[in-house]
Amino acid sequence: MLGGDIRMEQVTLAAGERLDRLGFQGLRIIQNPTKFKFTIDAFLLAALVEHRKKLRLLDLGTGGGVLPLLLAGQNPGLKAWGVEIQPQLADMARRSVLVNNLAAQVDIIEEDLKKLPKKLLLNSFDDVIANPPFYPVGKGVISENDALAGAKFEIHCTLADVIKTAARMVKGNGRVALVLPAQRLGELMVLLAQVHLTPKLLCLVYPKAATSANLVLVRACPGTGAGLKVLPPVFVYGADMQYTDRMRQIFHGAKLDISK
Amino acid sequence: MLGGDIRMEQVTLAAGERLDRLGFQGLRIIQNPTKFKFTIDAFLLAALVEHRKKLRLLDLGTGGGVLPLLLAGQNPGLKAWGVEIQPQLADMARRSVLVNNLAAQVDIIEEDLKKLPKKLLLNSFDDVIANPPFYPVGKGVISENDALAGAKFEIHCTLADVIKTAARMVKGNGRVALVLPAQRLGELMVLLAQVHLTPKLLCLVYPKAATSANLVLVRACPGTGAGLKVLPPVFVYGADMQYTDRMRQIFHGAKLDISK
Repeated sequence: MLGGDIRMEQVTLAAGERLDRLGFQGLRIIQNPTKFKFTIDAFLLAALVEHRKKLRLLDLGTGGGVLPLLLAGQNPGLKAWGVEIQPQLADMARRSVLVNNLAAQVDIIEEDLKKLPKKLLLNSFDDVIANPPFYPVGKGVISENDALAGAKFEIHCTLADVIKTAARMVKGNGRVALVLPAQRLGELMVLLAQVHLTPKLLCLVYPKAATSANLVLVRACPGTGAGLKVLPPVFVYGADMQYTDRMRQIFHGAKLDISK
Repeated sequence: MLGGDIRMEQVTLAAGERLDRLGFQGLRIIQNPTKFKFTIDAFLLAALVEHRKKLRLLDLGTGGGVLPLLLAGQNPGLKAWGVEIQPQLADMARRSVLVNNLAAQVDIIEEDLKKLPKKLLLNSFDDVIANPPFYPVGKGVISENDALAGAKFEIHCTLADVIKTAARMVKGNGRVALVLPAQRLGELMVLLAQVHLTPKLLCLVYPKAATSANLVLVRACPGTGAGLKVLPPVFVYGADMQYTDRMRQIFHGAKLDISK
């Protein structure tokens, strides 16, 4: 299936790995379905990161690199750094960067985000983003699969760690963007305030129009001030249980309309 | 227009006042359009207060008494206290209680909510609710009309005062419910956490499906813990610029469905 793809000469797939399509821009991503797969959360978060020229972006806990790949693929002016503590995920992410010929735009750094910066400059990023582990340890059944468990549960870092690091790495006029379970919205607002990040945009994501929200997207900026805007809701599925038009647009790289 | 209404023998309308319908349960409310009128916010907040037997409810900053009237009218088992610092609004509210024959269920207390309790017991209310002044002083043009200004701007009390008082007055197993501009959602979450009120339910209200939210409804409970549920969004107007079915149901006394 991959014969003739010159990019594949540079990388090798390990046992259990496969090369999946990533969105609609011709991108591909190496995934191991038993270890870690991206979810729609990544597309939703990408929809909150605007295209600008010469953007320096940092993804905290990049997993298989889905967000740097998506955003670098959308924006040739983007330079992205993805930090991942888990060696097998960082390695997968690095190979996915090669598969997509994005080595000039994306660096994967195997590192504990709590120990940043090392090679990275403090307060130097236009955008710091994260799709952090969703569940506190002790809530729910932790997977026996280490990589998956680390991506889903706060084993390697807590939400507070992610937000503290984001505040340290983002530029004074930059933006922090996160996607989290809607249940953590209250805690999220408190943690942002503790590091003087002010929420500016919020978007609730509902599986369907008549269900409670499962995800919240937030954009916060350094400094104080008010003026939070709660964007129109995003519904993932319609009454017909197919993706809504809005969600399809987001899969195709559409950004959230922050003018509404 | 009021001839023959025996209830009107008990009250007198002052100059500029009129007797308006309040919802669809036969309730009426005295209003002075140049001073203070209820808005749909009151109906939305009432939709978050469930009917239960022998409910003791406190409304902080009751204005013309719209919320105690609405909720007492819906629930004969409810005993409500409405606190209002502005004498002319408290007086209007008291007369509206008489107009509706609800004196056995509703007490209007002219008092500064920051100085509670006086006649009221600490931690004795099942529900503490508020539709507090929306705008910090210094934001926007303050009305020259004192009553209106006091109801819209944080002249007599701040959001922090309201939330602190709510935390002191609510029972340990009670609930605090507020309606606020969506722009203050971040601040709201921080203020709740400061007095150990944990948000349990949140509902965003959007003028239309494709606009940003203008209101947020929140129910918070004393104590720590997580598990915030973000209820399905409420849209006030449809594409036809008429009230949506959901909004009409709320005007008729429907409660938000917290099971979704």
